[in-house]
Amino acid sequence: MSITPKGLYLTEGRLVQALSNKIASLRILLDHSNNSDELNQLMKGLYPSEIAYLIQHLEEEQRRKCVLGLKSEFNAEILLFLSPSLRKEVVNLFDISELSQILINLESDDVLNILRDLEAIHYQKALNYFPVEKSRFFLERLRHPQHTACALMRSEVLVFPDYWKVCQALEHIRSCHTPRFYDVFVVDHERRFLGSIELSAFVKCQEDELLSEVMTRSTHVIPIDWGQDEITFMFRLYELISAPVVDKDSRIVGVITVDDVMRVIEDKVAEDFMHLGGIHASDFYETVSKTSVGRLNWLLITVIDAILTSLVIQYFERVLHFKQGLIILMPIAAAMGGNSGIQAATVAIRALATRELNALNSARFLWKEVSVSCFNGALLGGGLGVLAFLWFKDIRVGLVLGGAVLFNMLWAGIAGTLFPMIIARLSGDPALSSGPLLTTTTDVFGYGLFLGLSYFIFKF
Amino acid sequence: MSITPKGLYLTEGRLVQALSNKIASLRILLDHSNNSDELNQLMKGLYPSEIAYLIQHLEEEQRRKCVLGLKSEFNAEILLFLSPSLRKEVVNLFDISELSQILINLESDDVLNILRDLEAIHYQKALNYFPVEKSRFFLERLRHPQHTACALMRSEVLVFPDYWKVCQALEHIRSCHTPRFYDVFVVDHERRFLGSIELSAFVKCQEDELLSEVMTRSTHVIPIDWGQDEITFMFRLYELISAPVVDKDSRIVGVITVDDVMRVIEDKVAEDFMHLGGIHASDFYETVSKTSVGRLNWLLITVIDAILTSLVIQYFERVLHFKQGLIILMPIAAAMGGNSGIQAATVAIRALATRELNALNSARFLWKEVSVSCFNGALLGGGLGVLAFLWFKDIRVGLVLGGAVLFNMLWAGIAGTLFPMIIARLSGDPALSSGPLLTTTTDVFGYGLFLGLSYFIFKF
Repeated sequence: MSITPKGLYLTEGRLVQALSNKIASLRILLDHSNNSDELNQLMKGLYPSEIAYLIQHLEEEQRRKCVLGLKSEFNAEILLFLSPSLRKEVVNLFDISELSQILINLESDDVLNILRDLEAIHYQKALNYFPVEKSRFFLERLRHPQHTACALMRSEVLVFPDYWKVCQALEHIRSCHTPRFYDVFVVDHERRFLGSIELSAFVKCQEDELLSEVMTRSTHVIPIDWGQDEITFMFRLYELISAPVVDKDSRIVGVITVDDVMRVIEDKVAEDFMHLGGIHASDFYETVSKTSVGRLNWLLITVIDAILTSLVIQYFERVLHFKQGLIILMPIAAAMGGNSGIQAATVAIRALATRELNALNSARFLWKEVSVSCFNGALLGGGLGVLAFLWFKDIRVGLVLGGAVLFNMLWAGIAGTLFPMIIARLSGDPALSSGPLLTTTTDVFGYGLFLGLSYFIFKF
Repeated sequence: MSITPKGLYLTEGRLVQALSNKIASLRILLDHSNNSDELNQLMKGLYPSEIAYLIQHLEEEQRRKCVLGLKSEFNAEILLFLSPSLRKEVVNLFDISELSQILINLESDDVLNILRDLEAIHYQKALNYFPVEKSRFFLERLRHPQHTACALMRSEVLVFPDYWKVCQALEHIRSCHTPRFYDVFVVDHERRFLGSIELSAFVKCQEDELLSEVMTRSTHVIPIDWGQDEITFMFRLYELISAPVVDKDSRIVGVITVDDVMRVIEDKVAEDFMHLGGIHASDFYETVSKTSVGRLNWLLITVIDAILTSLVIQYFERVLHFKQGLIILMPIAAAMGGNSGIQAATVAIRALATRELNALNSARFLWKEVSVSCFNGALLGGGLGVLAFLWFKDIRVGLVLGGAVLFNMLWAGIAGTLFPMIIARLSGDPALSSGPLLTTTTDVFGYGLFLGLSYFIFKF
């Protein structure tokens, strides 16, 4: 029976509870002792991902002690499961030669992931400790942009010539040490991709059949220059578990597996989520100072928004002399527009990300959002207008409020749909658009409409 | 060579472009002809997921024609790739007996997915067309809640007794027709789970080895009553491709595979995204009326928010007589608080979803967010205060604005962190909290603080 880590789940029942208990004992140990034997004992048999989870839950000083205590037995795979900012922190606890030594056992795509985090001078140094051939290979790969097939793929890939028999392929698989794989890829004499066989179909084949007879002429190959959006779209559409990456001559140069794609999909939608909330990337593990500075940019746009709003109010100041009722109702149109705009933008951003919204249906989508805004704007604007009339016993106040809410919600529906589409067309990130841009326009429009309408209705 | 659909990608190059071209020709065909042969010709060789993508891009009337035209050759797998609201629409185009007939070829978990969408009377009727045993099985499964292991798993699972040799297992695999699988599960004589063998390790085994010798005593089993959060957490932590589902006696009753988990993970984070934007679920494919009504609830909370704000302003109306400068600056504190609160809430919601934020680090996270709010509040409150002083040449105006911004941002930081955590503790969805609740409190606090401070500073 192969020896594997026992993992926490088996030993202690429910997973999250088990992790929590482990964190508690780890914290106590780190705070009260410097004994690295005890630490290694505590971590013994745990999976790298479990250790990473534990490390993420420590204070900075505890984390330092923990990593240094584990150092001699530190498994590089732990790094892969850490959040980016913590990974940098932990990597910096090693010197370059130590780092290269622990990296050398990882698969090529994982080494690249970690090297990418280092600064150029450091990864150059780290590469010096690798065998010449490997270090040249990594340097070459590091030149490619991060979010392409080339960066996602693993280079270790098994391929078999189409004239081989199943038994020959089996023999070859048994003879070599490969990471886990899910499909058998068949190539011609120039390593050009011909087809694939799902592993569970492969084991059903008779030993003397030719690979060319049992393979599926699959069409799911990934050109090396594809971006991650195209790759995730393809994995999702065809429910792939692995797919070969080919160069421009159709030769197989690597393989992308579902676990990497899963991480990309999750990162992407989490990123959109952060952007919608006005955050560049999750700063959960960042320090107070970095977090504060990182959040300032959106808040500065809010400052500009607020100043613009104030200027609008100042411009209409003479209207304000008219009636106190107007001052009391002033913020309503802006609030209604802001929130209904965010609703439209949220749907648009998500539909753009999943490629459901595209050139073919954008006009229809815009039209629908305008209709929705008209409907909700008329309903809520009408309701609020009546309320304002009853409150201040003045039909003009009701007209001003109702009109401002209706027109601002209409604008919000249009802008909430158009902004993400335009930004996507300009190759920007649509999720970044909705928050700041949209709120600023709905605020300025909201106050402007309300006060402008007041001016006209009360003046004449 | 096995015969498979050719798929669009091979025939026409780039995937999305190919799909777009196909949609264009499909639309023309449906608008100008009723010939179902031409339609079947156009769809020939396409994957179900591709056809689903095409169907999603049609207008309602085109969609009806398309589905009815395909009817005789309609592949039930197409249904699995449609968004929930469209799936209902398409299912309703079939009568119950037709539907049962096309469903019968699907795997059990997929049939259940579709049956769940039907209303109780309809799925009862549909089950009448299945063989008695199957229909009883489905009825039993449909009783379980939707988001548990039981609903996610597939019941068709290969298991092997531990005393079998590798060659016996191979023979059995070859003899039976199974859906794709990734791991070989080994059980004792009572079907209790003992261990598993990754398929790529299994093919390396010698034929006469015992399964009990080559298996890994894996700990990654899923109790049947686990919820989807625990399941996705486990798949992510251990990078699983498939895992056995066991009943309370540790007997294997099914298997969950990575493609289902991937869909759950994506749906969950997309759902959080929608909630943050004030939408219950993506209404991209819904009609105008359903969309409008669906979005009203959050907008109604905004109405309450706006009325509360107006009441606050009315309460402080006597302050408003003092100085026009105050009226002009009134909305700023509310806007700053609202946006910084959403930032804190966004990070908290996401960290709760990935289980990074939990009882162990919530106090530290709250403390950090308070520090961040203090820092940014002091910086931006100070800056805006100075600006207001320069604008209105009155130190009191500056003090009022600066103080209101600082304190409201401080409140926003606390509320943005606490609200999601409290709602999660109460087993609610934290993503639903942030928008409406948070904005209402930061608006009311923002105006209240600004006007209250004005009252005190100008009065005395």
